[in-house]
Amino acid sequence: MSAAHHTVAEIAERFGLTFHGDGARVIDGVGTLAGASSSQLSFLSNSKYSAQLTTTHAGVVVLREENLAECPTAALVARDPYVAYAKIAALFERLPASPAGIHASAVVHPSARVAPTASIGPCCVIEADAAIEEGAVLGPHCIVGAGCVIGAQSRLVARVTLVTRVTLGKRVIVHPGAVIGSDGFGLAFDRDHWIKLPQLGGVRIGDDCEIGANTTIDRGALEDTVLEEDVRLDNQIQIAHNVHIGAHTAMAGCAAVAGSAKIGRYCMIGGNAGVLGHLELADRVTITAKSLVTHSIREPGEYSSGVPLQENRLWRRNAARFKHLDEFARRLSALEKDSNND
Amino acid sequence: MSAAHHTVAEIAERFGLTFHGDGARVIDGVGTLAGASSSQLSFLSNSKYSAQLTTTHAGVVVLREENLAECPTAALVARDPYVAYAKIAALFERLPASPAGIHASAVVHPSARVAPTASIGPCCVIEADAAIEEGAVLGPHCIVGAGCVIGAQSRLVARVTLVTRVTLGKRVIVHPGAVIGSDGFGLAFDRDHWIKLPQLGGVRIGDDCEIGANTTIDRGALEDTVLEEDVRLDNQIQIAHNVHIGAHTAMAGCAAVAGSAKIGRYCMIGGNAGVLGHLELADRVTITAKSLVTHSIREPGEYSSGVPLQENRLWRRNAARFKHLDEFARRLSALEKDSNND
Amino acid sequence: MSAAHHTVAEIAERFGLTFHGDGARVIDGVGTLAGASSSQLSFLSNSKYSAQLTTTHAGVVVLREENLAECPTAALVARDPYVAYAKIAALFERLPASPAGIHASAVVHPSARVAPTASIGPCCVIEADAAIEEGAVLGPHCIVGAGCVIGAQSRLVARVTLVTRVTLGKRVIVHPGAVIGSDGFGLAFDRDHWIKLPQLGGVRIGDDCEIGANTTIDRGALEDTVLEEDVRLDNQIQIAHNVHIGAHTAMAGCAAVAGSAKIGRYCMIGGNAGVLGHLELADRVTITAKSLVTHSIREPGEYSSGVPLQENRLWRRNAARFKHLDEFARRLSALEKDSNND
Repeated sequence: MSAAHHTVAEIAERFGLTFHGDGARVIDGVGTLAGASSSQLSFLSNSKYSAQLTTTHAGVVVLREENLAECPTAALVARDPYVAYAKIAALFERLPASPAGIHASAVVHPSARVAPTASIGPCCVIEADAAIEEGAVLGPHCIVGAGCVIGAQSRLVARVTLVTRVTLGKRVIVHPGAVIGSDGFGLAFDRDHWIKLPQLGGVRIGDDCEIGANTTIDRGALEDTVLEEDVRLDNQIQIAHNVHIGAHTAMAGCAAVAGSAKIGRYCMIGGNAGVLGHLELADRVTITAKSLVTHSIREPGEYSSGVPLQENRLWRRNAARFKHLDEFARRLSALEKDSNND
Repeated sequence: MSAAHHTVAEIAERFGLTFHGDGARVIDGVGTLAGASSSQLSFLSNSKYSAQLTTTHAGVVVLREENLAECPTAALVARDPYVAYAKIAALFERLPASPAGIHASAVVHPSARVAPTASIGPCCVIEADAAIEEGAVLGPHCIVGAGCVIGAQSRLVARVTLVTRVTLGKRVIVHPGAVIGSDGFGLAFDRDHWIKLPQLGGVRIGDDCEIGANTTIDRGALEDTVLEEDVRLDNQIQIAHNVHIGAHTAMAGCAAVAGSAKIGRYCMIGGNAGVLGHLELADRVTITAKSLVTHSIREPGEYSSGVPLQENRLWRRNAARFKHLDEFARRLSALEKDSNND
Repeated sequence: MSAAHHTVAEIAERFGLTFHGDGARVIDGVGTLAGASSSQLSFLSNSKYSAQLTTTHAGVVVLREENLAECPTAALVARDPYVAYAKIAALFERLPASPAGIHASAVVHPSARVAPTASIGPCCVIEADAAIEEGAVLGPHCIVGAGCVIGAQSRLVARVTLVTRVTLGKRVIVHPGAVIGSDGFGLAFDRDHWIKLPQLGGVRIGDDCEIGANTTIDRGALEDTVLEEDVRLDNQIQIAHNVHIGAHTAMAGCAAVAGSAKIGRYCMIGGNAGVLGHLELADRVTITAKSLVTHSIREPGEYSSGVPLQENRLWRRNAARFKHLDEFARRLSALEKDSNND
């Protein structure tokens, strides 16, 4: 999977780890404990997989000190093996070649500014007054609308659309199909029909953010939609106009945040969870999958809604009773009163 | 944000409002009460923001008569300040230039008909027998499939795909990534595998509709999927084959409507709400966010499902009890019987 | 809708059905019982529509033996009229012309291999070492990343993106906006910020699969994300990295499956349903719309979560009580204890 080659000792030195066993062993890739070959590196982070350690054929395993004794091969000891593995594995990633320069099929407006070291792929369209900074990579079919800025070393993988007034920081990664800076959904109801509100703001995305495939982030109505640095959005997420997301917050696939909501730093929003408009979430709030946040949350912690999955036949009976919960509560209180009066 | 300039008096006249204060003041943009400068117009609609009125630096504020006394600057009085603001703000919107004609990089089938005043952007593909009417604008990377019609003054912002047999009315706006006229999900199960049903219908979209980014609207199996006029769809909405949506209905992001459902006029469908297939919703039905509609709704009104968000530790306890709700109901009835027999 | 013409007798012979009535009648299309003309074929599968049979103007109707007596026109008798109709209707489908060869505007890497009978549409981009097999059709604006393989007779309708290391089997259909092989959402938290894990696996999609518009399927972290044969995915579905989906499973729009989940064969996943990561679902499991699967399912059957829709005023009262369900359960038990002690 890669032409990269590193000895165990070189890896240990580069990432500040100690190694045990054969430091001269050459590693040319990574794999799972069950699947790695003798020239590959693997890792043990989740103790659920510790049984696989004893039988692994990996050339070297990144693990915690406490698992060292059971390791049948060379080992690299890390405080957090998952983090260490993440860093090491990047050595073996083969990104597509991105030669500096503008592909002949790209359409670049004369007023746009493209840094000489930037790479602009086939069929890209770069509109008036846009700026592409040093080392930025635009894969095929990206559209960079009027006045947008792509920060240095950022990468639009392919077919990304930035509509207008979008600014990406440095090292931002945007995956295919993402649409950033589209009109917010702003409407006023005028007696018998809708009037569209112009969406005059933009989108500001901080350094080191990542935006998943087919995710949409609307631009603000008057002020900007903002993602602070290191915000990580999975696929098919919807971020409405004027949302503000604090640094280091991560959201799983299909989550959605309605207009003007303000999410804190270091939050974790589960898959298909939703946050209603104009709410505020404190820092370090976790929302579990498919939950709907209907009020602001002031305290860090984990929050949930929903009911458990059951066999449909049983679920139907319970769900039908839900419609009478208020009545049950009253009947329960009445019985208690009776009981106390006895 | 715009080269447009209008005096307060001109704005008042144009939109039929009365003004108070300096009618000669020149306005060149819009802003929030808190952020607007002395050459910008702001508005007060939601009384939640009335405290900001007294300290605003805006050049003029659109407001209700009742707020006039507290206004420290020029004012435009409107019955509905939000609607008046929506109309005024459009003066200050700077849409990208869309020169009439076909970009050199576009690929247009010889049998397609493109009106002379239409604008066809870079890398657009227009297939056989398609028609683009007067004043329509196709931003970059739009695909207009065989036999599709784009009505006059409609705007496909960028990278919109109309697959086949799609007709858009006049002044329709479609945002990037939207896919209209893709195959409906029609399958027949033949003993041990699926057979695909050809999707032979089309999609008809009425005048003044708006379709959000990455929204999908499938074409009908035999007859058409229909959106009447002034239907407003936010981002990432899924409309299945043969759905019919009444005029002036609005849907928030990530809502989904299953096949052959019929939604009335003036409905409001909340974010990530769902409607099951073949159901009917009356006019003026509101569905709150993340609710699932599992039966037809005959009466106007607001409908909901779901359970409230709680701290995870508390939620777990309550959710576990949900699985026994039917049993609780029986036990409650038994106790009541006992109690009555006492 | 089609230039195809077939007599009733020819259709009967081709699909092994018996016909009643005028076998020489020429059929040139299909329609609903209510809408079909005398040169069109219709079908009766759902008994809900049997009243429409008696008044149909269709030229011929595909139906079960038991409905033959009420049929006012020619009939084709089938054990499963819906399956028979699906097969017959394909005769009347007019797919867009897809001439073999590479469109002049396409950008094909010299190391890519394109079969002579394949059709590559306008603005397609085919990257290094990709392979397009015989008879495959790429509509406009498809991107086939490095090392991807498109199996024979597969069809990427338009604007499909395969990022890297994606292999499609034979006769796979992918609808516009789908993104296959994007980075999985793999992150490690390093003290105060996120580290991205390289996504080194690929995606393998079996023969006869269908992937809906704007659906996303991420590539694996180390091993592959896998769809076995005849998997049918509707629009806007999210399949995370390392998910495995068994053959003949179908998922409705907006469903989502989190990382490393394993779904069995012949499962049916309802619209906007979700499956959490690392779970396993047995074969022939059905999940109803908007349900969340939070534990592995070992037995075939139908499973659900959620609560019923109600008028908002009533729903609010019941939902508020949900927060006290655990307390109610305790109070109920206490009353029962009291009652038993009486």
